[in-house]
Amino acid sequence: MNGAKMANAVIILGAGLGTRMNSDLPKVLHPIAGAPMLVHAMQAAMVLDPLRCVVVAGYEAAQVEKAALAHDPDVTVVVQGEQLGTGHAVAQAQAALADFDGDALVLYGDTPFIRPDTLEAMIEARQSHDIVVLGFEAEEPGRYGRLIVKDGQLDRIVEYKDASEDERAVTLCNSGVIAADCATLFDLVAAIGNDNAAGEYYLTDIIAIARARGLTATVVECAEAETLGINSRFELAQAEAVFQNAARMTALDDGVTLVAPETVYFAYDTVIGRDAVIEPNVVFGPGVTVESGAMIRAFSHLEGCHVSRGAIVGPYARLRPGAELAENTRIGNFVEVKNAVIAEGAKVNHLSYIGDAEIGPRSNIGAGTITCNYDGVSKHQTSIGADVFIGSNTMLVAPVNVGDAAMTASGSVITRDVPPGDLAVARARQDNKAGFALRLFEKLRAQKTKGQ
Amino acid sequence: MNGAKMANAVIILGAGLGTRMNSDLPKVLHPIAGAPMLVHAMQAAMVLDPLRCVVVAGYEAAQVEKAALAHDPDVTVVVQGEQLGTGHAVAQAQAALADFDGDALVLYGDTPFIRPDTLEAMIEARQSHDIVVLGFEAEEPGRYGRLIVKDGQLDRIVEYKDASEDERAVTLCNSGVIAADCATLFDLVAAIGNDNAAGEYYLTDIIAIARARGLTATVVECAEAETLGINSRFELAQAEAVFQNAARMTALDDGVTLVAPETVYFAYDTVIGRDAVIEPNVVFGPGVTVESGAMIRAFSHLEGCHVSRGAIVGPYARLRPGAELAENTRIGNFVEVKNAVIAEGAKVNHLSYIGDAEIGPRSNIGAGTITCNYDGVSKHQTSIGADVFIGSNTMLVAPVNVGDAAMTASGSVITRDVPPGDLAVARARQDNKAGFALRLFEKLRAQKTKGQ
Amino acid sequence: MNGAKMANAVIILGAGLGTRMNSDLPKVLHPIAGAPMLVHAMQAAMVLDPLRCVVVAGYEAAQVEKAALAHDPDVTVVVQGEQLGTGHAVAQAQAALADFDGDALVLYGDTPFIRPDTLEAMIEARQSHDIVVLGFEAEEPGRYGRLIVKDGQLDRIVEYKDASEDERAVTLCNSGVIAADCATLFDLVAAIGNDNAAGEYYLTDIIAIARARGLTATVVECAEAETLGINSRFELAQAEAVFQNAARMTALDDGVTLVAPETVYFAYDTVIGRDAVIEPNVVFGPGVTVESGAMIRAFSHLEGCHVSRGAIVGPYARLRPGAELAENTRIGNFVEVKNAVIAEGAKVNHLSYIGDAEIGPRSNIGAGTITCNYDGVSKHQTSIGADVFIGSNTMLVAPVNVGDAAMTASGSVITRDVPPGDLAVARARQDNKAGFALRLFEKLRAQKTKGQ
Repeated sequence: MNGAKMANAVIILGAGLGTRMNSDLPKVLHPIAGAPMLVHAMQAAMVLDPLRCVVVAGYEAAQVEKAALAHDPDVTVVVQGEQLGTGHAVAQAQAALADFDGDALVLYGDTPFIRPDTLEAMIEARQSHDIVVLGFEAEEPGRYGRLIVKDGQLDRIVEYKDASEDERAVTLCNSGVIAADCATLFDLVAAIGNDNAAGEYYLTDIIAIARARGLTATVVECAEAETLGINSRFELAQAEAVFQNAARMTALDDGVTLVAPETVYFAYDTVIGRDAVIEPNVVFGPGVTVESGAMIRAFSHLEGCHVSRGAIVGPYARLRPGAELAENTRIGNFVEVKNAVIAEGAKVNHLSYIGDAEIGPRSNIGAGTITCNYDGVSKHQTSIGADVFIGSNTMLVAPVNVGDAAMTASGSVITRDVPPGDLAVARARQDNKAGFALRLFEKLRAQKTKGQ
Repeated sequence: MNGAKMANAVIILGAGLGTRMNSDLPKVLHPIAGAPMLVHAMQAAMVLDPLRCVVVAGYEAAQVEKAALAHDPDVTVVVQGEQLGTGHAVAQAQAALADFDGDALVLYGDTPFIRPDTLEAMIEARQSHDIVVLGFEAEEPGRYGRLIVKDGQLDRIVEYKDASEDERAVTLCNSGVIAADCATLFDLVAAIGNDNAAGEYYLTDIIAIARARGLTATVVECAEAETLGINSRFELAQAEAVFQNAARMTALDDGVTLVAPETVYFAYDTVIGRDAVIEPNVVFGPGVTVESGAMIRAFSHLEGCHVSRGAIVGPYARLRPGAELAENTRIGNFVEVKNAVIAEGAKVNHLSYIGDAEIGPRSNIGAGTITCNYDGVSKHQTSIGADVFIGSNTMLVAPVNVGDAAMTASGSVITRDVPPGDLAVARARQDNKAGFALRLFEKLRAQKTKGQ
Repeated sequence: MNGAKMANAVIILGAGLGTRMNSDLPKVLHPIAGAPMLVHAMQAAMVLDPLRCVVVAGYEAAQVEKAALAHDPDVTVVVQGEQLGTGHAVAQAQAALADFDGDALVLYGDTPFIRPDTLEAMIEARQSHDIVVLGFEAEEPGRYGRLIVKDGQLDRIVEYKDASEDERAVTLCNSGVIAADCATLFDLVAAIGNDNAAGEYYLTDIIAIARARGLTATVVECAEAETLGINSRFELAQAEAVFQNAARMTALDDGVTLVAPETVYFAYDTVIGRDAVIEPNVVFGPGVTVESGAMIRAFSHLEGCHVSRGAIVGPYARLRPGAELAENTRIGNFVEVKNAVIAEGAKVNHLSYIGDAEIGPRSNIGAGTITCNYDGVSKHQTSIGADVFIGSNTMLVAPVNVGDAAMTASGSVITRDVPPGDLAVARARQDNKAGFALRLFEKLRAQKTKGQ
C-alpha cells in the first residue's frame, strides 16, 4: 500500500443464536480447530493491525464477551439487546467508536475463513472509493443478495426476493463484509429504514443511500469459499474439514511428514517443524509447538505443550498444558504429562503420570511411576535431578525432591527427599509361603461351588 | 392408515452362507454398527408391530437361531435343510404360521436398510391389492429382475436372463420384498415349480401365478439404497459406511457437536443428547447413552454404559458394560470402568481400573488405583463412600468397603474395610541408603562390561 | 515364459535429493506403509529373481546404502558423485556389473508401484526385442516424454519440450523403466551425449542410438498408476493412500472383517488371516502376522508380532517387536507387550507392561503388573510358569522366575524366584488410623487458606 497505513477499526457481528445450530451455545462460540468461530474472525482481522475491535454480542452476550476478551483483552464488546437486523447491529458499535477517526470494517463472527489478503485488498480499495463491499462470483447464486454494478460503480445491493429477472441473472453476490470511513458508516447506518417485511434494518441498504448522496462504492472480489457462513452443525463440520485439509496441505508443503494426513487434527495455532514425523491418528489441541525432526507417534494427544528436536512422543502419549519436552526426550505409551519440564534425554516410557514436576537430564522414569501431586486439597511439586533412576511403580508423594544420580527401588512410596546418589527403598520384604497358592485356590474354588 | 391396524407376521430369510463373504460366519450374522445384519432386518420390521416373526435359517442354523433369539426371544427360527430357492425358503415358515390370520411380509436378512415408512406403505397398499411387491427405479438395472406393470397392475416379475429386449428396457426392479395375506402367500408358494436351469423354487414366480388366479398385485417403490443387498465384505464395509454417515448426520441434526464426524463410529442403538460434544476418534459399541451436555473426548471407547449430563470422559477412556456415570463425573486418560456406578462429581482421572464397584459422590480416585476384583476364581465388589480420597496406586482388594470421608495412603494395598473418616495406610517406611545408587550403578556397569 | 529363465540384473536409481520433498532425508528413504520407497522398488524387482541388484545412491549415499543393505545384504550400492542425469546414473552401475552376462532392468527408487507382472512382461518382451521400454497411456500426457512408435518398432523417446505438434498429440508416454542386455545397455549409455540445455545425460536417448545401430525396440504398456513417481510430500501421502486402499481391498477379498477399512493402516508386509476381525483405528507396523479368527480391537498398535488364532487384542493394546501371542490369549487395554511369549490361554487384561518375558499357559496377569526388566544398565528376563496368578500391581524385578501354579499377592514387589504352588507376599500390613483422614483434610484446608 502506498502512503502511511491508515487507522482501522473492526466491527464483528456476533449477536445471533443460530437457531439451526440446535444448541444452547451462541453460534459464534462453536469452535473450529479448537478456537471459537469468533476468534477466527478476530484473528483474520489482525492483518489490518486494527486500533480498535468491537464485537457486537447479543444472545448469551456474557459468554461471548468472555470468549472475546480471553482471546484479546483490548477488544470492546457491546450488546445488541434486540436483534433488529445487521444495520441495527452495526449501530450498536457507534458509541464505542465515537471518537475514532479512520476506517471501519464490518465482519461476521460466523464467517471465519476470509483471508488476510482479501481484507488488505479492501482497505487498499478504500483509497479510491468511499465504500468497499466484499463480493464473490457464486457458483450457484441461489438466494444470495446481488451486487449491481453500473458505470464502474457498485450501485446497490439487491436482495434476491426484491430482484428483477435481470438482476437475478447477476452472479456477483454479496458477502456482507463492508469497509468505509467510520463516521461515514455510522451516518449511513443511521439513515437505514426498516420498512420491509421483517421490519429489520439491513446493512446492505447503505449502498443505495450512499450512492444517492454522491458517494462512490466498489466491489473487491474473493473466492466463494472465503465467505462460507456457518448456520448448522453440518456446515460447522464442513468448515472444520476445510480448515483441517488446508492445515494438512500447509504442513506437507512445510516439509512435515504426515503418514496419513486425513487422520491428523490440528488446532488453529499448531506449529510443526520441517522433517517432523506425525504418525496416523494424532490430535493437536491449542498451543502446541513441535520442533523440526521430532516424532509424534500414533494415537497421541497434545495440548499446550512444546516438543523439542529429536524427541519421540507416543504412541498413546498425552501431553497436557505445560508439558515441555527438551531435545531427545522420550514419552512413551499410556503416559500423561502435565505442567512438567522434561530435560534433555530424559525418558518416561510406560504407563506413568507426570504432573507438576521437573525431571533432570538423562533421568529414566520407570513404568508405572506416578507423581502424587494432589493431596485432596492442593497441588504440589516434584523435582527429580539429573541421571536419576526411578524404579518402576514408584510413587513420588509431592512435594518431594530426588537428588542427582539417586535411585528409587521399584514399588517404593517416596515421601521424603532423596539425597544425591542415594538409593531410596520403601517396601516390604518378600515372603514365599510354601504351597499357599495351591491351598488358596482350592479353598476359593470350594467356596464358589458352595456359593452356587 | 385408515381402519384398525391389521395383524402382521414377518418372515425373514437368512439361510444363505454367502460364499462371496469368504467367511465361516453365516452371512446374516456379519455385523453392521455392532449388530448382525439379521438384527437390522428384524428391527426394521418392528415398525409393523408384528405378532409373529419367523426367521428362516440354513447354513449354521444354530448360530443364526442364537443371534435371533438374543435380540428377540419371541422370534421363531425354522431351518431350511436344503437351499432350494427363495420360494422354498418361504415355504419352511408355513408350519410356524399355520394358525396365523393376517398379512405376511417377506424380508431378507442381508438387506438391512429398508426404511420403516417403506414397510408401512406396503401394508397400506395391501388394503387395495392382494399382493404388494417392493420395487425400485434402478440407476443401472443390469441383471436385476424387472417388474412388469400392465393396466395398472403388477403383471409379473421377469428375471433378467428370461427378459425380452423390451422388458430389459424397464428400469423398475424387484427388491424381493413381498407382502400378502399369509394363507394366500403359502397357497401361491405351494404352486411354484422348479422347472428352470438351477432347479430352484423362485418366490418371484408367485406374481404370475396370482395374476393367473385373478388376484391383484401392485408395486410400492422405495429408494434403490434401501434395497442394498450385501454379498461381499466390500459391500458390508460400504453398508457400514452408509449407516455411519446417516448416523453422523442424524447426530448433527439433533444438536450433537461432532468435531470430526468422519472419525466417530456409532452402534445401531447409540443415543446422544443435544449439545453433547464428541471429539475425534470415538468408538461407540452397543448400548450407550450419552446425556445432553456431556463430553466424550478423543480416543474413547464406550460400550453398554450411561454418561450423564456434565460428565467428561477421556481422552483414552474405556467404558465397558455396566459403567454408569452420574452428573459431573470425570473419567480420565487410560482409565477402564466396568460394571461400576460412579456417583455425582466423583473423579477417576488417570491410569486406573475400576471394575465391579460403587464410588460415592465427590470421591477422588488417585492415579493408578485398581479394584482387585478377581481372586483367580470369582469376582468381588468394591464399595467406596462419599467424599473419599483414594491415594495414588491404591489396591482395593475386593470385597472391601471404604467409608465416607475416609482416605487411603498412596501405594497402599487395602484388604480390610476402612471405617468412615479413617486413614488407611499399608506401606513400608522409606529408607534412604546413602551412596547406594552410585555404587549399584558402578557394579551393574562393571558386570555388563564383564559380560560382553 | 518359454525356455530357460534368463539371468537378470536390476539397477535402481536412487541418487536424488528430491528438492520438492522439503526434507533432509533422501527422497527414496521416505517410507510408504512402513518401508522406504526404495525397498518397495527392490521388492517389486524380486519377481525377476535377479542375480544382481545395484542401487545407485547419491545424496546422503551412506543413509541410502544402509537402508538398502538392511533390506537385502546382497545388494550392491554405487555412488553417483555428481548428478549429471539418468544416463550418467546408469553408467555408475557398469563396474559393478562388468562381469555380468544377462539382462539388466533399470528401475527408479521413487516409483514404487510397478507390478510384478508388468516386469515379467518386459522380460518376456526382451525375447523378441533388443530394448524394452515401459510405457503408459497417459490421461493427461502434459509434459511427459512421448514414445514414438514407427513400423511396429519404438523409434525414439522424445522429451515434451523437443516434441513437434504431431508428437505432442501422442498419448503413449515414457515411464523411464528400460530393459536390455546388460552389455548392450552400457554400450548405448556410453554413447549418450550431454549437448542439451541442462548439460545432462538422458537415458532416454539410448533408443534413438540403438535404432540407428539397427537394434530393435518395443514398448510394454502398464497402467498409469503403476508409474506414479513421488516428488513431493503430498504425492507421498497420495501414494500411501493408494497403497492402503489396495491393502484394504485385498484384506476384504481375503475374508478379513474390517469394520471401518478406511481407519486401518497396514504395513507393506502385514499378513492377516481369514475371518480375523479388525476393529476401527488399528495401526500395523512392519512384521505383523495375525492368524485366522483372531480379533484386533479398536485403537491397537502392532509391530513385529504374531497373533494366533482365537487371540483377542485391545482395545488400546500395543504389541511391540517380539510379542508372540499363542492361541486364545488375551491382551487388554493399556497393555504393552515387547519381546515376550504369551502361551495359550494366558491373559494380560489391563494396564500392564510385559517386556522380555515368558508367560505360561492359562496364567492370569493382574492389572497394573510390570516386568521391571531394566536396572538402568541392562535388560533382564522374567519367566512365569503355567496356571500362575499374578496379583494386581505386582512388580516382577527381573531376572526372576515364578513357578507353575504360584501366586503373587496384589501390590507385591517380587525380587526373588517364587517356587511352584507358593504364594509370594511382599507388602506391609494395613493400619486404619481412626479419624486421621478427617483431621488431615482439616489441616490441609487450613494451610491452603493461610497460604492464599
